[in-house]
Amino acid sequence: MNANKYVVGVDFGTLSGRAVVVRVSDGAELGSAVHEYAHRVIEQTLPGTDVRLGPDWALQSPQDWIDVIKIAVPQAIAAAGVPAADVIGIGTDFTACTVLPTTADGTPLCFETPDEPHAWPKLWKHHAAQPHADRINELAARRGESWLPRYGGKISSEWEFAKALQLLEEAPEVYARTERWIEAADWIIWQLTGVESRNICTVGYKGVFQDGGYPSREFLAELNPGFADFTAKLATGQVGDDVGGVTLAPLGGLAGRLTARAAEWTGLPEGAAVAVGNVDAHVTAAAADAVRPGQMVAIMGTSTCHIMPSDRLAEVPGMCGVVQDGIVPGLWGYEAGQSAVGDIFGWFVDSFGTEGHDELTALAEKQAVGQHGLVALDWFGGNRSVLVDHNLSGVIVGQTLATRPEDVYRALIESTAYGARMIVETFERSGVPVEEFVVAGGLLKNPFLMQVYADVLRRPLSVIGSDQGPALGSAIHAAVAAGAYPSIEEAAAAMGKRAERAYEPDPARADAYDRLYAEYRRLHDFFADGRMLHTLRAIRNEASA
Amino acid sequence: MNANKYVVGVDFGTLSGRAVVVRVSDGAELGSAVHEYAHRVIEQTLPGTDVRLGPDWALQSPQDWIDVIKIAVPQAIAAAGVPAADVIGIGTDFTACTVLPTTADGTPLCFETPDEPHAWPKLWKHHAAQPHADRINELAARRGESWLPRYGGKISSEWEFAKALQLLEEAPEVYARTERWIEAADWIIWQLTGVESRNICTVGYKGVFQDGGYPSREFLAELNPGFADFTAKLATGQVGDDVGGVTLAPLGGLAGRLTARAAEWTGLPEGAAVAVGNVDAHVTAAAADAVRPGQMVAIMGTSTCHIMPSDRLAEVPGMCGVVQDGIVPGLWGYEAGQSAVGDIFGWFVDSFGTEGHDELTALAEKQAVGQHGLVALDWFGGNRSVLVDHNLSGVIVGQTLATRPEDVYRALIESTAYGARMIVETFERSGVPVEEFVVAGGLLKNPFLMQVYADVLRRPLSVIGSDQGPALGSAIHAAVAAGAYPSIEEAAAAMGKRAERAYEPDPARADAYDRLYAEYRRLHDFFADGRMLHTLRAIRNEASA
Repeated sequence: MNANKYVVGVDFGTLSGRAVVVRVSDGAELGSAVHEYAHRVIEQTLPGTDVRLGPDWALQSPQDWIDVIKIAVPQAIAAAGVPAADVIGIGTDFTACTVLPTTADGTPLCFETPDEPHAWPKLWKHHAAQPHADRINELAARRGESWLPRYGGKISSEWEFAKALQLLEEAPEVYARTERWIEAADWIIWQLTGVESRNICTVGYKGVFQDGGYPSREFLAELNPGFADFTAKLATGQVGDDVGGVTLAPLGGLAGRLTARAAEWTGLPEGAAVAVGNVDAHVTAAAADAVRPGQMVAIMGTSTCHIMPSDRLAEVPGMCGVVQDGIVPGLWGYEAGQSAVGDIFGWFVDSFGTEGHDELTALAEKQAVGQHGLVALDWFGGNRSVLVDHNLSGVIVGQTLATRPEDVYRALIESTAYGARMIVETFERSGVPVEEFVVAGGLLKNPFLMQVYADVLRRPLSVIGSDQGPALGSAIHAAVAAGAYPSIEEAAAAMGKRAERAYEPDPARADAYDRLYAEYRRLHDFFADGRMLHTLRAIRNEASA
Repeated sequence: MNANKYVVGVDFGTLSGRAVVVRVSDGAELGSAVHEYAHRVIEQTLPGTDVRLGPDWALQSPQDWIDVIKIAVPQAIAAAGVPAADVIGIGTDFTACTVLPTTADGTPLCFETPDEPHAWPKLWKHHAAQPHADRINELAARRGESWLPRYGGKISSEWEFAKALQLLEEAPEVYARTERWIEAADWIIWQLTGVESRNICTVGYKGVFQDGGYPSREFLAELNPGFADFTAKLATGQVGDDVGGVTLAPLGGLAGRLTARAAEWTGLPEGAAVAVGNVDAHVTAAAADAVRPGQMVAIMGTSTCHIMPSDRLAEVPGMCGVVQDGIVPGLWGYEAGQSAVGDIFGWFVDSFGTEGHDELTALAEKQAVGQHGLVALDWFGGNRSVLVDHNLSGVIVGQTLATRPEDVYRALIESTAYGARMIVETFERSGVPVEEFVVAGGLLKNPFLMQVYADVLRRPLSVIGSDQGPALGSAIHAAVAAGAYPSIEEAAAAMGKRAERAYEPDPARADAYDRLYAEYRRLHDFFADGRMLHTLRAIRNEASA
């Protein structure tokens, strides 16, 4: 029956949204469409006003998200050439933590007071809540909060609590009007189903929900007395509970049915299944058919996100988070990350290279391992895992007057591979086995880079078979929500795409990289305490002030 | 009487020779001419043959030097518009250690066997004798040779003994035919005067002559039995002694009188005074009128050489050498150096910059101290002083995705200033005061760079008032040799040119640099043992082999 049934996956990114139409029986991607957000990232001035934003602010417009639904979904159906009536479900994924304040009926506050910055959705890369995150971390460490180790010892300024505390303290009037504080991942589902739900993925990774609860009222009150009842603006209870009409919803679950209004927007059948909201990185695991214990999916683009289900709970130093059922129900879901990967290569080419990526890669790949004499620390955008310190910075060691741009380019690629190896080894040393390393994301297009990773990691690399992994993953979730498959695992096996052992390590190169990795580790250990790098940054910040 | 008397200074560089005509009374530079060497640096194939040279070889042709005498000197006289008959003396300076094998009458062996690489003069930057230098250093350290600390604990592969040992072991037949092993600085004097002499500067700095003698016969025999009598090919005795017809000659002394042949070459009067040979860096001290104790002259170009007379003898770690009477008679002469300075900035601009030096400087000088957040180790060409380790390499710390080329450019400039401060502090900590820091050389043309040095060193900078310092210095030596002044000090005071306090340190910037210099020192100490940098280089060399 699935052979002529279809699902739609919609991936909401930072600058655009993408819809893809997928055949339920085999995951064939039949058509897709992209809609660029009209407002892109709002970083300077609020739309239609002259209200200026502070440094490190980054907002988005909910209207842009609705436009993706209205424009990209029908276009994708048209491109696929399938009858809309045969679409049985829709699934979505979002950047996270992208979070907004709404009224009790889900109306974004920015629709009411568009000249108030804090009324707008704060995009994942809004970093102006760092002081608030610092206070949360300091207090949690002091009080020995049990949830803190689940996040590698530090929560991020990007997440729900830090951004909400900033809202409270900088705009108490807006905070008071905030009846719901909701991830965009869940807000879009609300628009499609008419019903509020909260997906267990963002609740766990971004909402600091652990062992059945949020941080305690006492903890929140100590941060700020006005923050004590903050969790009333979130969903509460256990997974599957319906507390005050709000479901804490399992991944792959049915969030609700497409409303008449949403059916009109999309051209899809009213009543089609709508999957529980999800995060772009996490749905990619399903797209790569890598949702079993020990399958680490690295989504490698401007940054890298590592997603891995496991049957074991451990406190892995510097992980971004571990959440029960956070990738697939029944398993622990781990997340780790590298703050900057493709961004580093892009920075180098844009700032220093006279050649482009293709030319530098062609020159770099002619070299033997170590021939450039260099080793670098991949901290140009800070270090997410395993040090969780965004105030670190990059280091390049070993340059001579004979060093060429392709030498540095290759060393930068290798540095990110060493960073990945550090993460894999940290997981394994913590008792969480990594059985398979699966690559997704834009950097797949550079086979030389992939081979470097295989050689440095001393492991074969599997690769995803789709270049629109998140949207495909969302479509797989839609198929599960629609009942076409009994589980994410089974849907992923049928619809996901993974080529095993696409890159094999070369033993001689791997041996050579072992020697260089030992030097990387020495560098890592010398600079990890931040003593020098924090000093340089502090001097920089004072000098820039 | 000196008002209408003139002297000629000739500076023999790496790629060309320059002659300048100078008025004896006041040092006015009246005319100059440059002759480019026809053979430049011989690095690939011997001239007129298909004999290929090995890696790290660098030779010169004695004919090119003669051509400078024949061509540039008459051109300079013509340009000056003075009567050649009023020229009372000529002085010369040379790169060092540039050394050649000759017959007993001074005929270069390469004139006899031009197809034999070892018969040619080895230029200062011939580095193929490194294994021989390593053996010399190892044996000297093991035997506790008293001369070793006079060279900061290590002699260079560039110097006379290392190059001669290479000659002996790789071409024993040529070694056997070598009746004299002579610095080009002295060979050119031989051509002008018809008499062999050995200047005390190269004898001391490059010939390892200390406390009245060379390394012992026992030491040389232990290196290689055939090397036992090597010093018979050099001059022997004390300064001023005439041993076997060869004078060990004091700087500023009269080496001899211009022969009829040399008068014909140059157009100068037969019998004119010819000053004792000298080294380019060392004569520059006279040109800058900086020949008193504690006046450190930094000749800043592609590399930097530091020259300083002192009335105290000390063992300064990592100095290139300390030689009695090595800059001016009666004082100890110290030399230190930085392997690469302008070379680093040139490498960066040529390899990575889209902008040139002027543009990068203009952008860099707008910044406050430390605003780029960077600190670098200036070891891109190794470290001459104070670590004496050419197998070190460069390090850049603190880069982010916002780092721009001008940030790195400024950090590279600052790194060389930190390196200079490290040298100055090492001298002072060793009990050798540095009273004044005097800059000469091509980098003077960048006032921003000079100001960085003043701020980093927390000292005023004096600057030389000539852009042909070595040639002017040689002319000053010629005036002394001709008897126009009783000493180098008095001649330098009358003819040398130095602007005191041309750059003053800014206290606020100096304070800011103190904080960055502390980080530089931490980096320096971490990488100084070479554990990481030597490993990277060893891996590089294996991978390149």
